[in-house]
Amino acid sequence: MTLPVSQTLLVCPEKGILHITLNRPESRNSMSLQMVQELQATFAWAANNAIRAVVLRGAGGHFCAGGDIRDMMTIRQQATDNPQAYQHFNRTFGHLLTQVNSSPFVVVTVLEGAILGGGFGLACVSDVALAKADAQFGMPETRLGIIPAQIAPFIVQRLGLTQARRLALLGLRINGEAAQKIGLVHEVYADNEGLEAALVRVIQDLQQCAPHATQVTKALLQQVGHQPLEQLLDDAAEAFACAIQSAEGMEGGMAFVQKRAASWVL
Amino acid sequence: MTLPVSQTLLVCPEKGILHITLNRPESRNSMSLQMVQELQATFAWAANNAIRAVVLRGAGGHFCAGGDIRDMMTIRQQATDNPQAYQHFNRTFGHLLTQVNSSPFVVVTVLEGAILGGGFGLACVSDVALAKADAQFGMPETRLGIIPAQIAPFIVQRLGLTQARRLALLGLRINGEAAQKIGLVHEVYADNEGLEAALVRVIQDLQQCAPHATQVTKALLQQVGHQPLEQLLDDAAEAFACAIQSAEGMEGGMAFVQKRAASWVL
Amino acid sequence: MTLPVSQTLLVCPEKGILHITLNRPESRNSMSLQMVQELQATFAWAANNAIRAVVLRGAGGHFCAGGDIRDMMTIRQQATDNPQAYQHFNRTFGHLLTQVNSSPFVVVTVLEGAILGGGFGLACVSDVALAKADAQFGMPETRLGIIPAQIAPFIVQRLGLTQARRLALLGLRINGEAAQKIGLVHEVYADNEGLEAALVRVIQDLQQCAPHATQVTKALLQQVGHQPLEQLLDDAAEAFACAIQSAEGMEGGMAFVQKRAASWVL
Repeated sequence: MTLPVSQTLLVCPEKGILHITLNRPESRNSMSLQMVQELQATFAWAANNAIRAVVLRGAGGHFCAGGDIRDMMTIRQQATDNPQAYQHFNRTFGHLLTQVNSSPFVVVTVLEGAILGGGFGLACVSDVALAKADAQFGMPETRLGIIPAQIAPFIVQRLGLTQARRLALLGLRINGEAAQKIGLVHEVYADNEGLEAALVRVIQDLQQCAPHATQVTKALLQQVGHQPLEQLLDDAAEAFACAIQSAEGMEGGMAFVQKRAASWVL
Repeated sequence: MTLPVSQTLLVCPEKGILHITLNRPESRNSMSLQMVQELQATFAWAANNAIRAVVLRGAGGHFCAGGDIRDMMTIRQQATDNPQAYQHFNRTFGHLLTQVNSSPFVVVTVLEGAILGGGFGLACVSDVALAKADAQFGMPETRLGIIPAQIAPFIVQRLGLTQARRLALLGLRINGEAAQKIGLVHEVYADNEGLEAALVRVIQDLQQCAPHATQVTKALLQQVGHQPLEQLLDDAAEAFACAIQSAEGMEGGMAFVQKRAASWVL
Repeated sequence: MTLPVSQTLLVCPEKGILHITLNRPESRNSMSLQMVQELQATFAWAANNAIRAVVLRGAGGHFCAGGDIRDMMTIRQQATDNPQAYQHFNRTFGHLLTQVNSSPFVVVTVLEGAILGGGFGLACVSDVALAKADAQFGMPETRLGIIPAQIAPFIVQRLGLTQARRLALLGLRINGEAAQKIGLVHEVYADNEGLEAALVRVIQDLQQCAPHATQVTKALLQQVGHQPLEQLLDDAAEAFACAIQSAEGMEGGMAFVQKRAASWVL
């Protein structure tokens, strides 16, 4: 199955890792409806093609500056004909967030420059978030008379209610170091060299991990809080028994005893 | 509608901001039943009078030292006649916490001196919490043979279970810097000048934000986790479409394009 | 009632505190089925014998290196006869985690050396976690082709989803200082002297707190999020009225007024 064609993204598979670059640098990679739909298609492709991780970043020194103003102005001009266009535009981005959040591979974001609105939301659904110290994170919506709608639940889940309230209600911007302190990103680097070296290390780390076990673990973590604890533990014990008796579990155990790298380590 | 009369509070509206000062400095602003009821009336007034934010602080260098001992001793003397008086006293404070937590405006707390028991609970339901570095935060209840009852859910929501367990079970006190590290407060200042300057800045920030959009955003954040994710995202998309087509949304969009301040910026 | 006999644990009651030392240093205190069952019996004994706190640590410089490899190899050899043995082995450890998490006394962990897999899970269900700066925390499961199954919900509850995803999906190890920054442990010390002094202080702190009030508070905190807020607050008000009218509540109030230590302070 070939990669979906994309006009707004640069997409490059390499040894089981899919590198996706948001590529609308002229608008700081703001989210057009087209870009949202191309991301949906690309993540769907990755889920069906044994991809172990997606690395998501932006071209031109910015990650993503939020929703595309031009798309919104186009909708405004058409709004008398199609009053639900705004709702559809907004909701589609939410479908993307849900898809990325629950994707069956590891999602790494590389966060530089502007990470605003929808870009902030995308950062919040990544498994590993690496940032430049001078990156700018923010939810400017209320300053524009609108609301952080689709991103709200993912922001609260990522930061907790306390930090989400302050940032969203005051429309504040914070830098990478502040973003790390509140648990939005995991690692922060002062320069590009540090950031790129960290990305190489993260990729090496995730290649140490068995692909299927990683997928099952990610699904399990997401399930926490969505079913009763004892039932979740029962299911987890069953999944554990499956994992340890699977080809991966057998290979992992043998590699450990034989003090060698497992077969999935690249 | 005139402000409710209050004996335990100093209340001062100024440009859409309501400044409330707990004013029982002789008892470090401990929470009497009267003070709780006057706060309820004042917050209800604010919700009906286009207030954009409440700034809550204490007179005399303390925020609030917890429940009022004198009230509790009075109840003890009357307890044979009214065994449910303790329960009512306690539960009323919980109603206040729920009211403040879900109030339709931004709540800013300025935290100095003692922030204990019920005062600790109030800090936990503010949208923005500014503290002095030498402030003393704590839940001393278990050291007094009683329990942190009404504040418990708000503490857990604010700090997470891990920090809540340690602080409540050991009856510990922590200072402002430690409070910031565990996510209880957002900003900490060594001296009064720093604290007051921060308050001025927070008020300026919140005045940049559209009042109605702020109210809708606050309600949306509070809704997270209380309804299924996909339904919440559907509702949020509808709210987004309303917001962008509202007077605020139109003004916000125009102000952005015209590179000027929006009409709601004071 | 005498303490249950134990081959894998050192157990020592002292002034209402039960000191439990995982004592399989030859395997870095890895969790055998026998050790799990002996911990279950010992925690059950403590719950029925007026124990105010359990201090849990490991012999030989390590806390616990995870599930016992020898037990798992034995199961592998028997697996054709008993395919559910893995599931039972795994699920039993989950029952222990639930038991420790909801135990009616304060649980303090002292974390040195390896805190891996199941050991990581045990750290996550303690009320107070003290660590050495050079301790090694990690979930290596996915690197072994298996999954962090029973510990998953307790990890997410302790660290939040954001940190849990990164650590579990990359199979990372972090030291004590990093563990404190993400809220896994409360206090970190560079040397043994600092760690032991902290433990003495924690024990002094918890002995300041009324035993029954502490028990009720712990149960209340755990209840948050598991019943509707207003109902929880109603129940909490009733529990408050009980507490303040109890022998502990009367003694606590009198000790406060008389500026003396309460009777439960050792």
